[in-house]
Amino acid sequence: MKHLVLGGVRSGKSQFAERWIAEQRKQIVYIATSQVWDGSMAERIAKHQSYRPDHWHTIEEPITLADTLKKVASEQPESGVIVECCSLWLTNLLCAENEAQLTQEREQFLAVLENYPLPVILVSAEVGLGIMPINALARRYGDEIGVLNQRMAQICDQVTLVTAGLPMTLKATQGK
Amino acid sequence: MKHLVLGGVRSGKSQFAERWIAEQRKQIVYIATSQVWDGSMAERIAKHQSYRPDHWHTIEEPITLADTLKKVASEQPESGVIVECCSLWLTNLLCAENEAQLTQEREQFLAVLENYPLPVILVSAEVGLGIMPINALARRYGDEIGVLNQRMAQICDQVTLVTAGLPMTLKATQGK
Amino acid sequence: MKHLVLGGVRSGKSQFAERWIAEQRKQIVYIATSQVWDGSMAERIAKHQSYRPDHWHTIEEPITLADTLKKVASEQPESGVIVECCSLWLTNLLCAENEAQLTQEREQFLAVLENYPLPVILVSAEVGLGIMPINALARRYGDEIGVLNQRMAQICDQVTLVTAGLPMTLKATQGK
Repeated sequence: MKHLVLGGVRSGKSQFAERWIAEQRKQIVYIATSQVWDGSMAERIAKHQSYRPDHWHTIEEPITLADTLKKVASEQPESGVIVECCSLWLTNLLCAENEAQLTQEREQFLAVLENYPLPVILVSAEVGLGIMPINALARRYGDEIGVLNQRMAQICDQVTLVTAGLPMTLKATQGK
Repeated sequence: MKHLVLGGVRSGKSQFAERWIAEQRKQIVYIATSQVWDGSMAERIAKHQSYRPDHWHTIEEPITLADTLKKVASEQPESGVIVECCSLWLTNLLCAENEAQLTQEREQFLAVLENYPLPVILVSAEVGLGIMPINALARRYGDEIGVLNQRMAQICDQVTLVTAGLPMTLKATQGK
Repeated sequence: MKHLVLGGVRSGKSQFAERWIAEQRKQIVYIATSQVWDGSMAERIAKHQSYRPDHWHTIEEPITLADTLKKVASEQPESGVIVECCSLWLTNLLCAENEAQLTQEREQFLAVLENYPLPVILVSAEVGLGIMPINALARRYGDEIGVLNQRMAQICDQVTLVTAGLPMTLKATQGK
């Protein structure tokens, strides 16, 4: 079962995803893509961590998401996986300013996702429903995350949009 | 019955809320949280007022929402109440730059809401689905309103998201 | 049948609309409202065109949408019509800085839409769910598009919100 969870800032998407994956498996691998840029980010990360059970296995990986997912599938085949979050991972790739790497990592990730053997939930931001900023990087980000969300949604069995902590099912198919 | 109505700018959330509360009770108390900052705000407020029936009782209260709600419940127990809107009230609290007051007013409001005896509908803005501005106050606002919307949604019996004037039900439980 | 499709940036709203209209009629008139402002816009337009069947009839019309719709109805009465997109058309009108023209074109368009005899699908951006920029033109745009979307939604038989390529039905009535 592959599940994509979309939501805005402080929408409750992370808590929703964490509850869902905890219902799928006992052992959970939490792939954290965030990089600590500043104090406000550090505080946000610490807050997120405090919600998670201590026995969850956290892997911090800002860039090579496909490789990390493959490694988890081969080394911890009894686990469920949560990726938190795809939009930060994409931001890391955009900020690295290496187009070849961006394309390669994105395509590898989508290829691994297509046949991923473990239950996995992907958290991603929905940012396309406001007025686009004039800043070129922000527009690029808006375009890239919009397309990535569409492609993940096509691959996933289930897609949920979370608003004010409440889920709306956008896609629900019989998964494995 | 406690109802939270979320929506974006010019989504039709106010008109939806006003129609809903008018179906609950004959006497309506309209709690307006907006402060007139400039001409464009004055115009917007006047437009909103022109939609409302003349016999509605309007109370303007930008800050002490909990106290106002309590007063209405004790003095006008046959009324329905509409709060328009929670996001402006939060903006007023943030602009006052008094953290202790912000925390106290917010917690008092949520405590009063929990056991509120009258039918009440709360209008609030959903602003988390666009790219966050870099401006620190805007980010703070985005975080605070996101969390407030989640907490109100947990307490309310019904939650509706309005887009282009059309309601989507996010939560519907048997209320009193 | 009149159908309004709303969605954010890169939400998949255009592809959804193009698939839908292709199911209604064999002959399709594609009304493109975009003006080529810069290279990035030219690239985006070329990408959109590459998705469309070659036999579709494209009309480029950035301003006089009502007249174009009337002409299509009288000259190609067997066609289905797609308008891509209403939000760019409104941007063109706002950028022309002619308030009388804006009002006239908008009201004429809505009047023509009300009784439009051909199957038509209107693509429009939903931009009201983020934090509003402080820029006055952006705020004006947010207000105008919000109201236009509400008015189109009232007239249309069907309204769909597309997120990550997935449709949510906001309105579905028996159309002709």
